[in-house]
Amino acid sequence: MFLKNTWYVACNAHEIDERLLGRTICNQKIVFYRDEHGQVAALEDFCPHRGAPLSLGKLCQGKLTCGYHGLEMGRDGHTVAMPGQRVQKFPAIKSYPVQERYGFIWVWPGDASLADPSQIPHMAWYDNPQWAYGGGTYHVRADYRLMIDNLMDLTHETYVHSTSIGQPEIDETPCETTVEGEAVVTSRFMQRIPAPPFWRAALRAKGLADEVPVDRWQICRFTPPSHVMIEVGVAHAGHGGYDAPDAHKVYAVVVDFITPETEHTMWYHWGMARQFNPNDAVLTAQIRDGQGKIFAEDLEMLERQQLNLSAHPARKLLTLNIDAGGAHARRILDRLLSAEQAALRA
Amino acid sequence: MFLKNTWYVACNAHEIDERLLGRTICNQKIVFYRDEHGQVAALEDFCPHRGAPLSLGKLCQGKLTCGYHGLEMGRDGHTVAMPGQRVQKFPAIKSYPVQERYGFIWVWPGDASLADPSQIPHMAWYDNPQWAYGGGTYHVRADYRLMIDNLMDLTHETYVHSTSIGQPEIDETPCETTVEGEAVVTSRFMQRIPAPPFWRAALRAKGLADEVPVDRWQICRFTPPSHVMIEVGVAHAGHGGYDAPDAHKVYAVVVDFITPETEHTMWYHWGMARQFNPNDAVLTAQIRDGQGKIFAEDLEMLERQQLNLSAHPARKLLTLNIDAGGAHARRILDRLLSAEQAALRA
Amino acid sequence: MFLKNTWYVACNAHEIDERLLGRTICNQKIVFYRDEHGQVAALEDFCPHRGAPLSLGKLCQGKLTCGYHGLEMGRDGHTVAMPGQRVQKFPAIKSYPVQERYGFIWVWPGDASLADPSQIPHMAWYDNPQWAYGGGTYHVRADYRLMIDNLMDLTHETYVHSTSIGQPEIDETPCETTVEGEAVVTSRFMQRIPAPPFWRAALRAKGLADEVPVDRWQICRFTPPSHVMIEVGVAHAGHGGYDAPDAHKVYAVVVDFITPETEHTMWYHWGMARQFNPNDAVLTAQIRDGQGKIFAEDLEMLERQQLNLSAHPARKLLTLNIDAGGAHARRILDRLLSAEQAALRA
Repeated sequence: MFLKNTWYVACNAHEIDERLLGRTICNQKIVFYRDEHGQVAALEDFCPHRGAPLSLGKLCQGKLTCGYHGLEMGRDGHTVAMPGQRVQKFPAIKSYPVQERYGFIWVWPGDASLADPSQIPHMAWYDNPQWAYGGGTYHVRADYRLMIDNLMDLTHETYVHSTSIGQPEIDETPCETTVEGEAVVTSRFMQRIPAPPFWRAALRAKGLADEVPVDRWQICRFTPPSHVMIEVGVAHAGHGGYDAPDAHKVYAVVVDFITPETEHTMWYHWGMARQFNPNDAVLTAQIRDGQGKIFAEDLEMLERQQLNLSAHPARKLLTLNIDAGGAHARRILDRLLSAEQAALRA
Repeated sequence: MFLKNTWYVACNAHEIDERLLGRTICNQKIVFYRDEHGQVAALEDFCPHRGAPLSLGKLCQGKLTCGYHGLEMGRDGHTVAMPGQRVQKFPAIKSYPVQERYGFIWVWPGDASLADPSQIPHMAWYDNPQWAYGGGTYHVRADYRLMIDNLMDLTHETYVHSTSIGQPEIDETPCETTVEGEAVVTSRFMQRIPAPPFWRAALRAKGLADEVPVDRWQICRFTPPSHVMIEVGVAHAGHGGYDAPDAHKVYAVVVDFITPETEHTMWYHWGMARQFNPNDAVLTAQIRDGQGKIFAEDLEMLERQQLNLSAHPARKLLTLNIDAGGAHARRILDRLLSAEQAALRA
Repeated sequence: MFLKNTWYVACNAHEIDERLLGRTICNQKIVFYRDEHGQVAALEDFCPHRGAPLSLGKLCQGKLTCGYHGLEMGRDGHTVAMPGQRVQKFPAIKSYPVQERYGFIWVWPGDASLADPSQIPHMAWYDNPQWAYGGGTYHVRADYRLMIDNLMDLTHETYVHSTSIGQPEIDETPCETTVEGEAVVTSRFMQRIPAPPFWRAALRAKGLADEVPVDRWQICRFTPPSHVMIEVGVAHAGHGGYDAPDAHKVYAVVVDFITPETEHTMWYHWGMARQFNPNDAVLTAQIRDGQGKIFAEDLEMLERQQLNLSAHPARKLLTLNIDAGGAHARRILDRLLSAEQAALRA
């Protein structure tokens, strides 16, 4: 059971350049492509003729043709044509609301009449010369909520990412969690600590001393269905920490869009937006590669955790203070899901 | 549920030269081999002693010996001997009617008392110097009836095989389907069209012009349980098409024997018999390789179609005029299967 | 259903040198490691915090730390510490009785209060300069009882191991099976036969003639839950066979500890202890490699036998005289299992 009346990141925009992409989102097989106007379209990946996957078809100047017997499918799910056939009465297939924004393709798996593009979260850094962005996508065999838990409790950095962004001071500094409507925010502010390797490199990249004590912050913000934006940064100690003037700090936003594929698998879209040295493309590539390696360290843990939980479905886990972010996020998801289900029955 | 009282191709005859072959046919695990007289035998692949697969055993001058503890099994399913044991009361295992014919091993998975070798379809080209034959075998993870559908509706050639045998004129030319008892025939005759690459090569091989307009025909003939013979050919236009004198045409028979392995997997035996240049072994190999590549293009489509259908078992598909051949074939299979089941209960 | 109140070999002692080992024993996921005193510990492989596998954690001077969020787990299953947390009320996880003995780690998957280390079978050859030992471990996808059957009926050597230890005389010589309490002994004594390749090499290694007739013996001894010790050897014929003076014979003990992983998979620990040339390390390595190759010949047979039995769960197998050892072993296991279950209900 997934929240359906909401926007998920389906894929990166460049993944459908010149080609069809079949992808399962919330247990629904969907084909994504660009139509003759370059506008993205999303349809059930099921040809109404004989059930062939449309994603094995061909795209001829934006026209989607089934690769098995040549049925031409329109972006609204109605068959446009098929050689030698009258197609007016062919059953329609489901067409999904879909938007291209901020370099991603967003899809609304639920009731199309409720789809409101203004609900897509705003990404201030997109197409903004003061920011740089790099990211990637991982397929993970775990419940997508395990990734929300992971990102809302960054104490795991000390253990999973001990050589890059982890440090014992994360564990030692209490976090605070607040709920703001449907959003959950977990914050941690560390004072006068050494910067870990990732941040030392960032300080150096900006021309700042990297071996002096810093204040470090992590502000994780969950919004439904499964977006987690994390403000992260360090400032030379004694300049105001998070509020320090730009000249004394480096900071970024960790961007996480988590998309359920099935109950126990997900697509994980991760990235980092930063304001320091935004025009340094080499640095952007270095950071993306580094982040990719760091985030890959989580995958085995989450997949093995999932196997353990699947083997012991009734077992109760602990919800400590550090787990409050993930716990509140799940409670909000449960509440929204109940409301969505109730509306379906009404 | 498969039709059982019928002949299926189990394997190619050469596959049991000098060795045992274990293969699952209609959900039954069977071991095939040649006995001391070179006669093919087919037995349950299950040693009555401890359940070891007999196909892991040894064949000593036609005597089948279990590879685990040395039980010697007879071709009738009765144990012949076992070191140190009296075997008279050992339970028999199932022995299957089996025939070697036309380079294939044929097996009858049902009631042995009903097995009639005269029901094996006749292959006029076998061991006939006026014909040449080449073929191969594929394992496909799809319901065997999806392959029947595929072969009875050749409009897919335009899309799946666009670089070899496909051409838009197939789509544009209506086909006609007739039912003749338990056989289904779907025919298509195309007039004054360009020959596609496969047929241009065939024309050239026979010393005929390949860039002139041709008449092309496809006559697909289904017979139960899952044999599809397809007469295919082209003639220089204006000489009578299918009925043109030999000097003006090239033609062949596409041979398809489809054997269910499980509900959703099959063994697909394909080949081509031709009368032009029958002694040209190089050409035979070229055609077999080309056909192998062409027929491999269907596999991903069928396997992905199967996944889609398995995910949506209740979904109704379309049955268009082009699907009439497959639809009639399924109806005949359903009718024969009901009759077979009724006879079992009687 | 497995016997639980008993000792199984979990792994070789060296497998937990300096590292954690996660292994499933009788369907229970367990993590094995050495604590700060070098003493082996065994715990549920499930962190009580969020279900992460503890075997993905770190071992810091014998302290087991969860690799996800740093929970420190004690060898008794009680959490010792976690950064920033009061852990006193954390639920305990299961701690397993465990012993290191004879180069193996032994685990008791059942009721810890019943665990008695004196029940671990004695291995006279361990750390004894008059003996040499070499062995290895295989993972096998079959019910562990199929391996007991295999080892209690050595007629399979004639077929499965025909080039090394098999010979027709095994088949031709009747065996005798006796039950001694919970132990089962199947013996076979062969007189004046040629030695097979393995034993010819052993005779040569000891400086004895290898082409003269020998007496050969095989005495297989099963004890619950799944230990099979096999006395094997050959003596120059005419010197008393099994009872011949040492100068006229070579002999060894085949050591088999079989540990169920799941209903249809097992860990198989095999080895050979010998008294001839005990200080010849090269010979020990040669014998271990040879035995490893020979025992690997059984794996495909057992795994394919398992597939056959799983496909035909109701089918009755034969229990011949040669199968008496395995049959008695299963009867004893069933009786002990019933008693264990009855005690649980009481």
